[in-house]
Amino acid sequence: MRKFPELSPRYIDPHPSPKGTAYTDGQYLPVSEAKISVLDYGFLHSDATYDVVHVWKGAFFRLDAHIDRFFQGLEKLHMSIPYNKEQVAEILHNVVALSGLENAYVEFICTRGNAPDFSRDPRNAINRFIAFAIPFGSVANPEQLERGLHIAITDVVRIPPPSVDPTIKNYHWLDLVRGLYDAYERGAETALLLDSEGNIAEGPGFNIFIIKDGAIATPDHGILQGITRQTIFDLCQQLQLTCTARRITPVELENADEVFITSTAGGVMPVTKANGNAIGSGIPGPVSQRIKDLYWAMHDSDAWRSPVTYPDH
Amino acid sequence: MRKFPELSPRYIDPHPSPKGTAYTDGQYLPVSEAKISVLDYGFLHSDATYDVVHVWKGAFFRLDAHIDRFFQGLEKLHMSIPYNKEQVAEILHNVVALSGLENAYVEFICTRGNAPDFSRDPRNAINRFIAFAIPFGSVANPEQLERGLHIAITDVVRIPPPSVDPTIKNYHWLDLVRGLYDAYERGAETALLLDSEGNIAEGPGFNIFIIKDGAIATPDHGILQGITRQTIFDLCQQLQLTCTARRITPVELENADEVFITSTAGGVMPVTKANGNAIGSGIPGPVSQRIKDLYWAMHDSDAWRSPVTYPDH
Repeated sequence: MRKFPELSPRYIDPHPSPKGTAYTDGQYLPVSEAKISVLDYGFLHSDATYDVVHVWKGAFFRLDAHIDRFFQGLEKLHMSIPYNKEQVAEILHNVVALSGLENAYVEFICTRGNAPDFSRDPRNAINRFIAFAIPFGSVANPEQLERGLHIAITDVVRIPPPSVDPTIKNYHWLDLVRGLYDAYERGAETALLLDSEGNIAEGPGFNIFIIKDGAIATPDHGILQGITRQTIFDLCQQLQLTCTARRITPVELENADEVFITSTAGGVMPVTKANGNAIGSGIPGPVSQRIKDLYWAMHDSDAWRSPVTYPDH
Repeated sequence: MRKFPELSPRYIDPHPSPKGTAYTDGQYLPVSEAKISVLDYGFLHSDATYDVVHVWKGAFFRLDAHIDRFFQGLEKLHMSIPYNKEQVAEILHNVVALSGLENAYVEFICTRGNAPDFSRDPRNAINRFIAFAIPFGSVANPEQLERGLHIAITDVVRIPPPSVDPTIKNYHWLDLVRGLYDAYERGAETALLLDSEGNIAEGPGFNIFIIKDGAIATPDHGILQGITRQTIFDLCQQLQLTCTARRITPVELENADEVFITSTAGGVMPVTKANGNAIGSGIPGPVSQRIKDLYWAMHDSDAWRSPVTYPDH
């Protein structure tokens, strides 16, 4: 007779996990124990929305803006959670406090979940809320932050708005992953994708800005409306710099004086090479540096900070 | 002092689970215990590929074709698993045998996973293989199978090939979910999406076929190359029916004599209404019925069956 394998009573994840704390279904957990059912349509259909906010020196940065965007995404996807904005903020404070992390990357997610009878009708599903805090991470590593990122402009088209509304922050990343592999093959470190008209769109987890003759511009179409991107508009106003959202061609980007990218994961990060060629003088430029400095200085402003109370502090 | 919530040692999923068995990281588990880390990029970036094969009356149907497509997807996504095709087949046989299910829906998945140091570079990630068997399910419920599905042709554009290669079976479903909600609003039961030129593409989990004056046609562009779709080509040849892959406009579909959809989840399923109007005579047509009968008859052919050996059988 054929021998069958034994059934284990529960899954033991053999993979390493970073430090951090999570919340799901009323439970606070070490991140290593934060799991979702493989049947959740948040996984099987990538039917989910999320947001990422960071904690810097013990305080959230622009927490309200991230929570507002998250609730807009829920509404557009016909999802609901049993928490209001204040309760979500409390959960996020708790996961950070319990993690002890002074600099953290905090992600909060709503998945479609499943219907109790496993019907395929998303209207019957019970949506699930998950949050976790892990150590602060960055799109660019310390070396890249110092000397500027090397980027490739790929011919991959970012999933267009008639398919997926880019103002709903979502996990549809196979185009971005394909862009990354294309970039690696061409000796670059990260990728830019195009919109369906051949203009610059965005890259894996970031928006992009160019500077030419002192004027700053960023794509306006088919992109995530990043909160860090919005912060750049805000601080350009403070610095009395012109910042415009408009179409940007690949050629324009290659001929810019300076280029930088923005992300909650890393803030303002200089780009010094595109498609193997130096941008401007080939080193991080002065305007990017001013913007970066002001971005981090804003983290000390009470208007943008929500301090976390930690246990034992 | 502020009171903090307690940390739970491990996650208890309070949601119901269907009957079934899963495999992940060397462990066979009840489906209720089949979970993935919330940090897996298969979830956080929908960076994953998968396939679904069904078991009918105790035998897999066209298992080799599904495993072949899965391995093609792995290669296109630069993923690898520590199993060859024979070992994957053995795991799938085991999950079905341990589940005891004679009619099963069997899904197998490769996720990007994570790098041990949680870098964002997908080349450093350790890919993960997951498989599960749950009771056989269908896109159409028994009533809809009998009287035909009511479908809406939406204006949502299926994620186009310059963004995501549709020959890689993937979880990017937010366009399909949006189509479903549009269809529900219009009183229909499921949705058709368009390609970027305005022709018919596919629906949530299925390919579509039209019949006009005895000739059968299905879209050729921007769609999943379904195994059930391929089976229709194979059996049309047996039935000496003409079956062509080509562009199909919405008007053509509305004026067809018969329409049916195909999916591993349900096989051949008639469509009798599009945008509120009857297709042909408004009842499932004779050609669709012949194709459906032959489809199920093929399940008895040794050429297509891989019988499962169950414990205690």
